[in-house]
Amino acid sequence: MSDRADRLVERLPEIGADLIVVTSLVNVRYLTGYTGSNGVAVVGPSTRLFLTDFRYTEQSAAEVDESFDRRIATLDLLEGVADALPGGELRLGFEDGHMTVRSHVRLRELMPERVDLVAAGDPVEELRAIKEPGEIERIAAAASVADAALRQVMEQGLVGRTETEVATALERAMRDLGARRPSFDSIVAAGPHGALPHAQPRDVEIGAGELVVIDWGAELDGYCSDCTRTLATGELSDTAREVYELVRRAQLAGVEALRAGVGGREADSAAREVIAEAGHGDHFGHGLGHGVGMEIHEGPRLSQRSDAVLQHGNVVTVEPGVYLPGEFGVRIEDLAVVTNGGSEILSSLPKDLITVG
Amino acid sequence: MSDRADRLVERLPEIGADLIVVTSLVNVRYLTGYTGSNGVAVVGPSTRLFLTDFRYTEQSAAEVDESFDRRIATLDLLEGVADALPGGELRLGFEDGHMTVRSHVRLRELMPERVDLVAAGDPVEELRAIKEPGEIERIAAAASVADAALRQVMEQGLVGRTETEVATALERAMRDLGARRPSFDSIVAAGPHGALPHAQPRDVEIGAGELVVIDWGAELDGYCSDCTRTLATGELSDTAREVYELVRRAQLAGVEALRAGVGGREADSAAREVIAEAGHGDHFGHGLGHGVGMEIHEGPRLSQRSDAVLQHGNVVTVEPGVYLPGEFGVRIEDLAVVTNGGSEILSSLPKDLITVG
Repeated sequence: MSDRADRLVERLPEIGADLIVVTSLVNVRYLTGYTGSNGVAVVGPSTRLFLTDFRYTEQSAAEVDESFDRRIATLDLLEGVADALPGGELRLGFEDGHMTVRSHVRLRELMPERVDLVAAGDPVEELRAIKEPGEIERIAAAASVADAALRQVMEQGLVGRTETEVATALERAMRDLGARRPSFDSIVAAGPHGALPHAQPRDVEIGAGELVVIDWGAELDGYCSDCTRTLATGELSDTAREVYELVRRAQLAGVEALRAGVGGREADSAAREVIAEAGHGDHFGHGLGHGVGMEIHEGPRLSQRSDAVLQHGNVVTVEPGVYLPGEFGVRIEDLAVVTNGGSEILSSLPKDLITVG
Repeated sequence: MSDRADRLVERLPEIGADLIVVTSLVNVRYLTGYTGSNGVAVVGPSTRLFLTDFRYTEQSAAEVDESFDRRIATLDLLEGVADALPGGELRLGFEDGHMTVRSHVRLRELMPERVDLVAAGDPVEELRAIKEPGEIERIAAAASVADAALRQVMEQGLVGRTETEVATALERAMRDLGARRPSFDSIVAAGPHGALPHAQPRDVEIGAGELVVIDWGAELDGYCSDCTRTLATGELSDTAREVYELVRRAQLAGVEALRAGVGGREADSAAREVIAEAGHGDHFGHGLGHGVGMEIHEGPRLSQRSDAVLQHGNVVTVEPGVYLPGEFGVRIEDLAVVTNGGSEILSSLPKDLITVG
């Protein structure tokens, strides 16, 4: 873990900072191992400082990487940061995408004039986007639990159960299989409700002959999974079957496009063109995918707005969808590890159209 | 719900703003009813504006209070805010305790020069601290589910089960009883582990003759509960029994002190003095309590650092503790509604020392 801080230090010159104060808790966890609710890290070429308050004295002693100098400060950890800084002129980076305006004002008040505050961007998120082998193992373990949970739910059938019941059963199965919690609120959306990309489960029974969009994931050991399958509950209309096949082809095209060096926009285009050529371009209103790791949404993004270039070790979703308002929706999503040669899929579930009664 | 926005407007003069942009999602939910993941509200004397993106077109139509003018904007909702503002010179308040430095820079770029940005403090949190009767009902319902879940777990016994097993059983019982999710990660901490105020459950069996601190809550219908009980698993040492009684007396003193007009600091002192007089002042290292509502921690605070004055309709925890490192911990916590005449307890569980085998 300690080399994560080393990699952060390598970024300080381009940030224009001598030190960086890391206040995002998930980033603090990434750098130090600390899982509590109040902690800050300060990192520089010869600085590895972790601060928490008295409530976490024992927990931080057990968790925080030993390369960090661990200090117990007052509840307002920024005071502790001010006290711990080295002398002389100093450019102190901060996470401007995380720190609030109020905390920034407070930090400025606490710091002596010799300290310049520098908006540092998201350097820890950038490190986190490239997963270490141990992280990929954890994401794969979370994906495996999520897959097994869906298999259990499919065996129980869908028709006649409400969307809420299916979502609850899925979340319970994940926990029984070892998940800490669902990595986000599960989506179970049947028929026309599936045309809402972010549908919330309803107390409405799933009928026969419908498409059911199920989007779910597990959190395990601090890492998330994310998957979507669209299941049939009986004989479908020709349109529904055609759209399913279209989304499947688009999803495969998206996966096929993944490789280190490819742009996030380019990957998105590979899937989007398949859908657009079939005349459904307007019905695919979201990006192709996003990174997944300690958080359910992280970098890199796969979309037309993305300027990311994929790197070996990225873990991303590939999740095209076609949504026909008032009719139905189809989304198919895998988690994929980007490699130099292509990609490796972490989802084990088939993508052929499956009918569950 | 629409009178919530009216009450926010009443605060604009003291904030020094003509309009306020509300970006905290929980605050947007409070004002508008919207429960999605991307939404912003703009409120002023003659402005009730809600913005979201295309993914939430249908959901927002179903959820957002009709007093709001609902608009579908691009994913970057701040662009939509800039487009929607009225002409002329304008002081636009923003939530400086929520908005990041980066969003603030972006907002400044998007706004014409005629718009002044004003740090508005936490005006919606201040409204939220005073609960409406319907909100108190929801918090009470969440507390009732949490109480019933603990009763189930107590019937199953504690000795020989691991802390993790008990925490999992408690969380499952809450869900089975209708909770959406636990309102925070449950604490189940036996023996010396109970001396950590924020202990995480371990895969360690609970023994006989120990004190077990259990801190848990349910989230139901958008509202949270929070409760702590410390149970015995058999014959205790004299010290343990004495400390339990001490904390119980301190908790009762804390509850007794609650009343509209009393300071958060004063309430904290009422409980703290009981513990200090018994020589355990140094072993009660956290504040007496905090507000609970849509979030598990909100205003007002009950602590020596608090400058809050309790108001009719506050819902607060009263949770003194004594923690003896290496030995055990005791914490007893109720949820209480502050009234003009005193308070009303929402927890139904007894506070006498209960032994569970």
